[in-house]
Amino acid sequence: MAVSAADESLARWGAPSDAPELSSRVQDYLARHVGVAAPWPPADPASWQIAPSRIPLSVAGALRAAVGDDCVSDARSDRLAATGGAAFIDYARRRAGAMDDVPDLVVRPGTHDEVMRVLAIAGEHRVAVVPVGGGTSVVGGLRTDEPRIALALERLGRLLHLDEVSGIATVGPAVTGPVLEALLQARGYTLGHLPQSWERATIGGYVATRSAGQASTGYGRSDDMVESLLVATPEGTLELGRGPSTAAGPDLLGLMVGSEGAFGVITRVGLRVRRLPEHRVYDALVLPGFAAGVDAFRDAAQSRATADVMRLSDEAETATTLLMSGPSGIAGAALERYLRARGVDLASASLAIVGWEGTDRDLVRSRRAATWRALRRHGAVSLGHGPGESWRRHRFDGPHLRDALMDQGYLVETLETATHWSGYLALHGDVTAALRDSLGPRPGPFVMSHLSHAYETGASLYTTVIAVADRHEPVAQWQRAKSATSNALMAAGATITHHHAVGRDHAAWLPQEVGPLGMSILRATKGAVDPGGLLNPGVLGL
Amino acid sequence: MAVSAADESLARWGAPSDAPELSSRVQDYLARHVGVAAPWPPADPASWQIAPSRIPLSVAGALRAAVGDDCVSDARSDRLAATGGAAFIDYARRRAGAMDDVPDLVVRPGTHDEVMRVLAIAGEHRVAVVPVGGGTSVVGGLRTDEPRIALALERLGRLLHLDEVSGIATVGPAVTGPVLEALLQARGYTLGHLPQSWERATIGGYVATRSAGQASTGYGRSDDMVESLLVATPEGTLELGRGPSTAAGPDLLGLMVGSEGAFGVITRVGLRVRRLPEHRVYDALVLPGFAAGVDAFRDAAQSRATADVMRLSDEAETATTLLMSGPSGIAGAALERYLRARGVDLASASLAIVGWEGTDRDLVRSRRAATWRALRRHGAVSLGHGPGESWRRHRFDGPHLRDALMDQGYLVETLETATHWSGYLALHGDVTAALRDSLGPRPGPFVMSHLSHAYETGASLYTTVIAVADRHEPVAQWQRAKSATSNALMAAGATITHHHAVGRDHAAWLPQEVGPLGMSILRATKGAVDPGGLLNPGVLGL
Repeated sequence: MAVSAADESLARWGAPSDAPELSSRVQDYLARHVGVAAPWPPADPASWQIAPSRIPLSVAGALRAAVGDDCVSDARSDRLAATGGAAFIDYARRRAGAMDDVPDLVVRPGTHDEVMRVLAIAGEHRVAVVPVGGGTSVVGGLRTDEPRIALALERLGRLLHLDEVSGIATVGPAVTGPVLEALLQARGYTLGHLPQSWERATIGGYVATRSAGQASTGYGRSDDMVESLLVATPEGTLELGRGPSTAAGPDLLGLMVGSEGAFGVITRVGLRVRRLPEHRVYDALVLPGFAAGVDAFRDAAQSRATADVMRLSDEAETATTLLMSGPSGIAGAALERYLRARGVDLASASLAIVGWEGTDRDLVRSRRAATWRALRRHGAVSLGHGPGESWRRHRFDGPHLRDALMDQGYLVETLETATHWSGYLALHGDVTAALRDSLGPRPGPFVMSHLSHAYETGASLYTTVIAVADRHEPVAQWQRAKSATSNALMAAGATITHHHAVGRDHAAWLPQEVGPLGMSILRATKGAVDPGGLLNPGVLGL
Repeated sequence: MAVSAADESLARWGAPSDAPELSSRVQDYLARHVGVAAPWPPADPASWQIAPSRIPLSVAGALRAAVGDDCVSDARSDRLAATGGAAFIDYARRRAGAMDDVPDLVVRPGTHDEVMRVLAIAGEHRVAVVPVGGGTSVVGGLRTDEPRIALALERLGRLLHLDEVSGIATVGPAVTGPVLEALLQARGYTLGHLPQSWERATIGGYVATRSAGQASTGYGRSDDMVESLLVATPEGTLELGRGPSTAAGPDLLGLMVGSEGAFGVITRVGLRVRRLPEHRVYDALVLPGFAAGVDAFRDAAQSRATADVMRLSDEAETATTLLMSGPSGIAGAALERYLRARGVDLASASLAIVGWEGTDRDLVRSRRAATWRALRRHGAVSLGHGPGESWRRHRFDGPHLRDALMDQGYLVETLETATHWSGYLALHGDVTAALRDSLGPRPGPFVMSHLSHAYETGASLYTTVIAVADRHEPVAQWQRAKSATSNALMAAGATITHHHAVGRDHAAWLPQEVGPLGMSILRATKGAVDPGGLLNPGVLGL
């Protein structure tokens, strides 16, 4: 059986050739800090067993009449292409050949009205419908074994209108970041939304999951960018967003944003875009430890002196970054001396990447000066532009590196949260401890974190963990760790997720996040727009 | 019968002695541009007929047992003090002695748990409950003749906690702006929320109505400031807000903000506060017409060069402002020459007030320079600090001026909306025309507008209208005009309200704003938290 690129992308993020080679220095470091692992070859996609479609032929026929013969398919390759999930447990399952979450039928509507017709047919026959964009959910947003139609939105992937006066791009939900950026930049605009999933994720997915990106401190999160939405639901169409802001009652736009396909299918999004920045400066710097760095970032945020990109690695992530890309040998020793002369011990340093962008050169310059004034109050020492620019070039490498580490037999996963500044360092300690305790014994796991979105009142915390994979039960191994960490987040009063959505993996904690009455509001809303429970059942715990 | 200050404040905003005297120049101007009016003396509050309480004694007894004897009252003065409404039609009705919207019983709970007990008793006896803060709604948020308990929240009016690290003040809902600012400023912080209702409105009211203030461009709207909420509902307690931001599903916090007392009683609010600015500059300037000014403000907003206060008057408001407070005679002629030499014709000028605040002097300076670069590209000419500082001193005078104008026999009312930049000037024209057409004939009405909140994608539009009051039917006179203007807003695609909430006066247009499915989500939410329909019935059209 022919293996398509779509098949391959289910077992890993990128092509095998895109995974970076791990140097012997890195391999030694892993062996010492995480443990020795054995190569983990994925099962051959050609061997995957996929069950036949469970959707009755009569339903498929009705769908064909609604959207056209070419746009309904139960072919293996189409069904695999509409299978989602980019979490460690998704890849671990694929490597073992587990393919029990493949949708039964793929339908590709080309208009809002066609989406409405698909929902009507699905409702009549009581078949579940799961909208699929880039398929990059890391929280099980698409992972279910229920019989279902995958609503592949790829035909709704155009830039429909650019209002250059208001700075609003109206787009179909399936446009990806790279495509939208190319279209916008050709006209002098940018969205500025750069999550790690940028290569594959879609705008509809960003909005449905409240995605944040690497420049969210400056450009805002995806939810900040939404000016308007058109949403198809089994009970009718919702059209929301009549201005830059409103006091017309409860925020229904904010109720649809983040609804993860459970309240409707987003068929059009109005997005705030910005003029393409002509001026851009990225600096790297170190601070004398993560605690000092957190204080420095807080000071900048509370002085209204944030940069557009603000990323601060803890000591462990700093050491790893220097190992992976930093100078070693004589150059490393020189760096150490340079920092020591400025009061920073490299061994306990915290690396920061800070970047400013804009159309007004003087404003970029003065914003940069203001950020630096705040950071210097806490001992920041510049490393120059070089490492900052290097980070910018490699900003989407993370998922490819994960492929390489999994190939070597390691469990690699990330999780993220946010809390207010006063509890930030304690939360960092709690998360680190929960992962260490649940993924021990020694020497692993290796746990490292960074702060990547600074708000006036708090910040996000993004943690990466590497452990030797339990090759018999890698999914259970991670689920235990995830559960322990999620409990720690709840105990600390932090949010279960800052920018990865709830999906199915976080659903057990959502009642703690919003309370039983919050859940009953979500159920009531679901009842109003999708009384038959067709839409992405299970997500958000609904 | 003794007339209390509370009685007086129902017929006008401030004490008669606080209403400014209108100079003969202003009186002439009104006569010429609006028409000649006859003094409009309010009915003597002592003559107001107030119906006896319709709440059964048994219910009052149960409430007394729940919150204490002192905290339940059907006394005339308490009932009047808990009667709300500060719109023209509220004052017009009071001037005629119409007092049919007075609550039946006033209950003053002192804790969240007491609020819960009051809701339980009200639910058992099927009596409506309307939370009351400052009573300053201008959209009929409290105006109803249904039998009801006024839940006066004045005992929940404290600053409960100030997290100086995170910059979060936790407050009771009944604290007013001046009290909170005094408490915060004593500790080096500020909220920075300055609506015209500042003297009387409460934090709970701000949040329940999505209020915006004069410095919202820089400090954010009240809804931007909310970090957390505790809400009492007949179905239980909601506690929302676990961090500076979250991706944990649909935004339930945003659903409670703006819920106008219909979804629950806000009993505690976590608010983002800022360090008290040490540096503050306010400039006045003129632009060659409102269209040029709108372009200039847009340019600043889209260059990320906004000031904290950004206010731009159209030509009519500029002329009035200069008449009321500007130089006349020789000084006026000098101003005219000064502007003409810089390419601005005073007769068609647009006045702007622009202010920057902050803790970092250099950043305030460079932000100011950036705003000026944007404004100068559109012909801005400085008038110096004087008029800007003068505006700041008189920023809360508006409602007192309205008292003076009503005393003279004029209808004075404001309305506001927001739209995206590409439709802004057309909307300004539509609103002006709708008011002129519906409040004619000539010479009045006098219509003037300003932009007071600049966003990247659009701005607010705030319009004041003055006409000779129809002394037989002033309420119907205004309702016709309001209706025509609201229809014009909907036709233009603008929002029915940018910062004054829906209340009852905008409820007829909410279905156009959010669509029938949006209304059904609101009803479903109402059903989840208040199935008996106790809470502020009628508001939001629920």
